Amino acid sequence: MITDDDIKRIIKESIEPKSDKQSLEEAYVATEKPFDLKTEFLSAANKKNHIELYEGYIKEFNEISSKLDTVDRMASNSNHSAYRCLKVDETYNMNAVYLHELYFANVNDLNSKITMDSLSYMRLARDFGSFDDWQKDFIACCKASRCGWAMTYYNFYTKSFMNTCIDLHSENVPAFGYPVIVMDVWQHAYYKDYLKDVKTYVVAMMKQFNWNVIEKRFEKVDRITKALRG
Amino acid sequence: MITDDDIKRIIKESIEPKSDKQSLEEAYVATEKPFDLKTEFLSAANKKNHIELYEGYIKEFNEISSKLDTVDRMASNSNHSAYRCLKVDETYNMNAVYLHELYFANVNDLNSKITMDSLSYMRLARDFGSFDDWQKDFIACCKASRCGWAMTYYNFYTKSFMNTCIDLHSENVPAFGYPVIVMDVWQHAYYKDYLKDVKTYVVAMMKQFNWNVIEKRFEKVDRITKALRG
Amino acid sequence: MITDDDIKRIIKESIEPKSDKQSLEEAYVATEKPFDLKTEFLSAANKKNHIELYEGYIKEFNEISSKLDTVDRMASNSNHSAYRCLKVDETYNMNAVYLHELYFANVNDLNSKITMDSLSYMRLARDFGSFDDWQKDFIACCKASRCGWAMTYYNFYTKSFMNTCIDLHSENVPAFGYPVIVMDVWQHAYYKDYLKDVKTYVVAMMKQFNWNVIEKRFEKVDRITKALRG
Amino acid sequence: MITDDDIKRIIKESIEPKSDKQSLEEAYVATEKPFDLKTEFLSAANKKNHIELYEGYIKEFNEISSKLDTVDRMASNSNHSAYRCLKVDETYNMNAVYLHELYFANVNDLNSKITMDSLSYMRLARDFGSFDDWQKDFIACCKASRCGWAMTYYNFYTKSFMNTCIDLHSENVPAFGYPVIVMDVWQHAYYKDYLKDVKTYVVAMMKQFNWNVIEKRFEKVDRITKALRG
Repeated sequence: MITDDDIKRIIKESIEPKSDKQSLEEAYVATEKPFDLKTEFLSAANKKNHIELYEGYIKEFNEISSKLDTVDRMASNSNHSAYRCLKVDETYNMNAVYLHELYFANVNDLNSKITMDSLSYMRLARDFGSFDDWQKDFIACCKASRCGWAMTYYNFYTKSFMNTCIDLHSENVPAFGYPVIVMDVWQHAYYKDYLKDVKTYVVAMMKQFNWNVIEKRFEKVDRITKALRG
Repeated sequence: MITDDDIKRIIKESIEPKSDKQSLEEAYVATEKPFDLKTEFLSAANKKNHIELYEGYIKEFNEISSKLDTVDRMASNSNHSAYRCLKVDETYNMNAVYLHELYFANVNDLNSKITMDSLSYMRLARDFGSFDDWQKDFIACCKASRCGWAMTYYNFYTKSFMNTCIDLHSENVPAFGYPVIVMDVWQHAYYKDYLKDVKTYVVAMMKQFNWNVIEKRFEKVDRITKALRG
Repeated sequence: MITDDDIKRIIKESIEPKSDKQSLEEAYVATEKPFDLKTEFLSAANKKNHIELYEGYIKEFNEISSKLDTVDRMASNSNHSAYRCLKVDETYNMNAVYLHELYFANVNDLNSKITMDSLSYMRLARDFGSFDDWQKDFIACCKASRCGWAMTYYNFYTKSFMNTCIDLHSENVPAFGYPVIVMDVWQHAYYKDYLKDVKTYVVAMMKQFNWNVIEKRFEKVDRITKALRG
Repeated sequence: MITDDDIKRIIKESIEPKSDKQSLEEAYVATEKPFDLKTEFLSAANKKNHIELYEGYIKEFNEISSKLDTVDRMASNSNHSAYRCLKVDETYNMNAVYLHELYFANVNDLNSKITMDSLSYMRLARDFGSFDDWQKDFIACCKASRCGWAMTYYNFYTKSFMNTCIDLHSENVPAFGYPVIVMDVWQHAYYKDYLKDVKTYVVAMMKQFNWNVIEKRFEKVDRITKALRG
């Protein structure tokens, strides 16, 4: 049930600009986050290149968002239209931006460890049979993707955590999920250092999963599921 | 922060099967929901056919889930493997199932109306500039999709409601969203009755949007965002 | 070996515009072909609608070709660029145009028959084991496509005729082939008259294959393969 | 016109196995070709890795072809079926095999040169305005592809040479073409040596185009077009 206070807040928000966007003109403006990739499993050249790729996606996403403000919506059609091109590439670049941010943040802990009483551990054990089963399935997803991503996410339909393998940035993507663990398996992530040995790269990255960062995401899902249960 | 009670509950859940799945052997088993499509804008033959399509997706999704229990994960690779085929088609059929459920539930109100003090109205006005701007953008998405879906969803990255156009069931899909309004724009949804006139079909369906159903989804997003703010 | 005469002709052609394009300014201008679909297995409304769809693809293809004359090639990139959008949609609409033309021309013979001494029959028998095996495989392709096409084509790599199933107009497409038999299995081709019963539609169309038209395509492949052996 | 001799030959071929496949049981068996990549613009590690990738595609393509001999065609459907998985991956791996073969063969000449009286030069000049215009357009295609290929090919519909950009191995692919110039722009082709600088990689490879190999492909197209004119 929404309360009177909720209604007041909502009305206020619908009149005033949202607090975290006060200085912006367009609907969304992505801002680059600074990442310091500490891992020794990737070369400095690879890490520098990867951050620059991410910056490129930010730039494109902002340009697309800006163009979408004024593109002709009446002329939209599925065969060829400016609107369609922008929307398709908006999703492509937006996924690229956020999946990279989630990835950079979760592969960066030289002293990585997970404890059995963590939410991450217990949730993965619950939904995959055991933590080890999750690991095997996640690695299988990493190996199955054709230049893309493996992702563990909370699925709002099945009401459980699932793994998925995405091609490129926006193909074969579940349409209703909250990501908690993300692995970049585009060839750009590992070819400099591992050539086609994607499995060695993936296992190396998993050894440096930042389970503190991941735990916070699992905690958020826990809060979400409680809120949905109402 | 997770409390002691949370921990107890979590441990309990990780040991016992989840309450809503007690009778199931596999990880997920989709069960068909009954839908009675009241709309007069679609022929009886079309509606019957559409429900049968949905049942077909349910059946395939369950078969795939079952096969995934035992498929060889070690042999997974991106060029061709049983695991990859199953995971790609799992996403395809799962999206088909849930997007159909969301669609059937939200296009079914002969006395459709939305009030300006509803959460739906205020949120769409806030994030699209005005309710009318949302409508124009949503119709543009419907026209832009190549056999697929238009969807209004809450985006966990931009922290706002956005429209997107999906091709087929799983291409050009945002990877982190909670759907609130869904329109089927596969040709199977309208060709029997409207042939290529997708716009007339879409406007007809929008006239029967069930804003009560949709409002509950917006309320859930409101609870989610409050929970995430924590 | 190219002869002196060849060289003269080639030089002449590289200086003068090609004879079949003398009046055109742009690189390619698709012109609509008239089709009179005689089949009684499709309703008049369906046939009229289908021809109009085809005309839409022609129009888009010509607009894209025209825009490609002057688009900025230096600014091309894979994340988002006018050049990429145009090239991707050029292929989409061009495939749509030509596959429709091949389809309309080959499903239109009320007195359809194939003789065992025809090139079509013998080639299909040679490369698929028997004519009947080709039929079964072709129908399987029609049923496997997700809104798209089934196509029998001569494959320049395997040096044999193969069947393939295309999604939409340009996904899962062999990159080196000469089409000889084409079936439209987009839902737009059959939903008005058959709803989801794609198999009944396909079998009906196959009963009206114009084997005279198809034979000429097989003869062309025969001339091509002889020329390549040359 | 097909002659009596043609008919005899054709009947003979439909009874006996084709001469180049006499020892094979399955419809097609791809055999690996040896490639010695002489270029100094790629590291030895990169070249070795690339050949191994190609061998992997050969292996998968043969396995898929073999499975297709006996897969259940009656059970084929578009949502999920063994037949569909095999056909989609057959095209993916087959394109990978042949495009790699065309690429390896055409980027390998340390003393690369093209003369203005070559067929290659004159045809590209004729269909793109000038040889230089073809170059600019081809480079734009290389930059536009999302992990995939740029290809110059003879298009049987437009009756001219065109450039296209393919994503992965089988997306955005023209359905009726004969390839003459092929560039691998998957990240696996250049990341080891060039990281994200695809343009420098492409220009380096183009400096070593083997125009003798390419010329033979243009000659074949010339023979094909003469044969089609009949």
